[in-house]
Amino acid sequence: MTTPTRSDCTAALDELRALLGDRLSTGSSILDEHGRDEAYTPPQRPDAVAFPRDTQEVSRIVKICARHDLPVIPYGTGTSLEGQIVPVSGGLSLDMSQMNRVIEIHEKDLDAVVQPGVTRTQLNDALRATGLMFTVDPGADASMGGMASTRASGTNTVRYGTIRENVLALEVVLPDGEIIRTGSRARKSASGYDLTHLFIGAEGTLGVITELTVKLHGQPESILAATCAFDTVEGAVDTVILAIQCGLPMARIELLDEVQMKGMNLLHADLGLAEKPHLFLEFHGTEAGVREQVETFREIASDLGGRDFAFAEKAEDRNRLWAARHHAYYAGKALKPGANGLVTDCCVPISELACCISRTKQAIEMSGLIAPLVGHVGDGNFHLAILVDPDSDDEMDRARDLAASVNKIALSLGGTVTGEHGVGVGKKKYMLAEHGGAYALMQRLKLAVDPQNIMNPGKIV
Amino acid sequence: MTTPTRSDCTAALDELRALLGDRLSTGSSILDEHGRDEAYTPPQRPDAVAFPRDTQEVSRIVKICARHDLPVIPYGTGTSLEGQIVPVSGGLSLDMSQMNRVIEIHEKDLDAVVQPGVTRTQLNDALRATGLMFTVDPGADASMGGMASTRASGTNTVRYGTIRENVLALEVVLPDGEIIRTGSRARKSASGYDLTHLFIGAEGTLGVITELTVKLHGQPESILAATCAFDTVEGAVDTVILAIQCGLPMARIELLDEVQMKGMNLLHADLGLAEKPHLFLEFHGTEAGVREQVETFREIASDLGGRDFAFAEKAEDRNRLWAARHHAYYAGKALKPGANGLVTDCCVPISELACCISRTKQAIEMSGLIAPLVGHVGDGNFHLAILVDPDSDDEMDRARDLAASVNKIALSLGGTVTGEHGVGVGKKKYMLAEHGGAYALMQRLKLAVDPQNIMNPGKIV
Repeated sequence: MTTPTRSDCTAALDELRALLGDRLSTGSSILDEHGRDEAYTPPQRPDAVAFPRDTQEVSRIVKICARHDLPVIPYGTGTSLEGQIVPVSGGLSLDMSQMNRVIEIHEKDLDAVVQPGVTRTQLNDALRATGLMFTVDPGADASMGGMASTRASGTNTVRYGTIRENVLALEVVLPDGEIIRTGSRARKSASGYDLTHLFIGAEGTLGVITELTVKLHGQPESILAATCAFDTVEGAVDTVILAIQCGLPMARIELLDEVQMKGMNLLHADLGLAEKPHLFLEFHGTEAGVREQVETFREIASDLGGRDFAFAEKAEDRNRLWAARHHAYYAGKALKPGANGLVTDCCVPISELACCISRTKQAIEMSGLIAPLVGHVGDGNFHLAILVDPDSDDEMDRARDLAASVNKIALSLGGTVTGEHGVGVGKKKYMLAEHGGAYALMQRLKLAVDPQNIMNPGKIV
Repeated sequence: MTTPTRSDCTAALDELRALLGDRLSTGSSILDEHGRDEAYTPPQRPDAVAFPRDTQEVSRIVKICARHDLPVIPYGTGTSLEGQIVPVSGGLSLDMSQMNRVIEIHEKDLDAVVQPGVTRTQLNDALRATGLMFTVDPGADASMGGMASTRASGTNTVRYGTIRENVLALEVVLPDGEIIRTGSRARKSASGYDLTHLFIGAEGTLGVITELTVKLHGQPESILAATCAFDTVEGAVDTVILAIQCGLPMARIELLDEVQMKGMNLLHADLGLAEKPHLFLEFHGTEAGVREQVETFREIASDLGGRDFAFAEKAEDRNRLWAARHHAYYAGKALKPGANGLVTDCCVPISELACCISRTKQAIEMSGLIAPLVGHVGDGNFHLAILVDPDSDDEMDRARDLAASVNKIALSLGGTVTGEHGVGVGKKKYMLAEHGGAYALMQRLKLAVDPQNIMNPGKIV
């Protein structure tokens, strides 16, 4: 992509301002805010930020940008972790936060139609009276468009799937401004190429998601959360493998290693948990079904060294536990005041998980850094938050080396360099190693859909 | 695509024969066999049939065909229902039946790596000792490559998903002969565009699937099949809606209308079922869980007119029931000896299912034809087998009109013209109506991946 010249940009911004009025912003703090996410990608300001209100407006904006060769960077809540929303070549940041309506809830069909700026907690609040829930739950209160674009998942993916399994259809504005719909509200279809899944995980490089039809799930009759301590990470991981293999329909099964638990105790002493590797669990089902699951799980875990089971039955206790889990990153950071966390995100076949974690722990030790580990271990996915003094180039270098080691270990074990955070800028360098010849096909698809390379240039391909 | 001239074809076949020896066939009966599937598409012989043994050979074959502009039509078991494997422009039928090895079974990871010629029963036979199962079960004993290419599903999709949710990764030979891998054995990944799902449902128009990594599921501790009669189809459908809404994890929930049941009784009198609309059910879980599910289901069904519950606990009884269901097409045909069945395949949001079926039944009545109805109603998907005297042009015309009405009804209710049989030749004419502007994007993707239009030309796009 050629960087637009200043005059091009001025003409485009004039047209955009005529369309949007004060919903086009070039204010300094707004530009700064849209120039960085939660990753380590160097920030870069957009030329302007647009706040569209509906799909037609998005289409008009994209047409203007296409005419002037101005990059368009869709922006949700800015909580991406690989620089996905950083305008690396400048351009227009398309902030979807004003497209935040829950349009329809179909209780009989267990689906909802939402605008992309709706966040996961906002949707669940809207669902409260229905007995239904939306299940994808990354750490941040991310937007639906952002989660779909990053192919996000979370703590209960092991039971309910990632966003990939929870989107039925999309409305998308293509790079030439055309509006298309991918799929319908029918639960399944064999009708033509799967465009829905092409846009899920495309990080805004193929178009702008302007509406999503998402699957909902019935709230279980009974929910029980639990924690369980282990002397070793291996014991915890083996427990997970066996539970999954037995077909136990775990709703959540999260690993926090002893380092993470130490940080957890600094911030959440009220949880009262030992500084040992822990599994955080949740069981969903009928009352009898949950009892049965807990019993089976206890047997498996006890055989493998699990103990100190603690149960949280009341909603407030469960919420406290999962809030602590969702804020694990901040708990980890408490271990090194003033530090930032460089977050890794690999995913391997579950049979390789114990090996992957053990080799990762060796790599941490060699790095001399502190790196608490949390994992959606039922999926084979785990993260480190590598703690670094932001003013120390040496620590930053060592952290980058450690992250690279983790990615190499994951690939060597038949895994992927990103389970749920996506590629953005940060993981681009691993794409060829992970995908081989398939990476060139991705580039051909990008060229076919966005020949001008106007949509979020510099990401993924 | 330009139809290859005879000389081109001869040169290509000479090269192919040098590569394959007697695994290239131009025998008359072989050509006939590869010129038709189970659909109403007019048959068309390929120029030759190749029987490759491994991926490298597929790559070499495709390269030869690409050089000579000879179409390549991947062929599984020939059980497609929309003419997917008919060589409408001639070319090479690529019969994958000799690539039928189960390569690896990973019990810990609940996945298996298979060649595309493996059929669903073959895989399940190979899994018998493991306690695992592959769940996608279209009526035919289709091949894994064929099921993936058609985005197939079956009777237990409501619980375990379609093939779309059950493929982790593919190996594909692209139209230029290059071999790529899409994805890994990791359960989830946010790494780049979703190529796996691009090839699933592409019906061989984008490349040849040469290997699949598929998900397996644990065999449930307890399985109970059941049948339940209703006076009206509405009662049955309302029962299904409520059961799904309650979050009952039904493993199978199939509707057979009174016409279908009449045919069923001609062929399977031993089942001893009344000629009334029936649900065929299966419950999977722990013993206690299954008991609980059955009880809840019974309550729901009884309130809505369900009665004559009959249970099949023993494996042989269950198998008899499901074999009868899988062969419903032949039972339907028994209602009109000598007739053929023109099969429809629409899918709508489940809240529209009762309306869709009622309008469909009106259309059947107006047609004056017999058309038994079976449905994967938990997914909102149902089929008619419209019975026609193959020698009667009038009946054939009326059957085509009826099928068209069903497709229009489905689209008007926010559904799709194909839940699981795919597009092939038969449903191409509905693509624009169903997808609008998105259909042009499919065509652009096809052009990007297969600029020569060598892969299964004339299908989908």
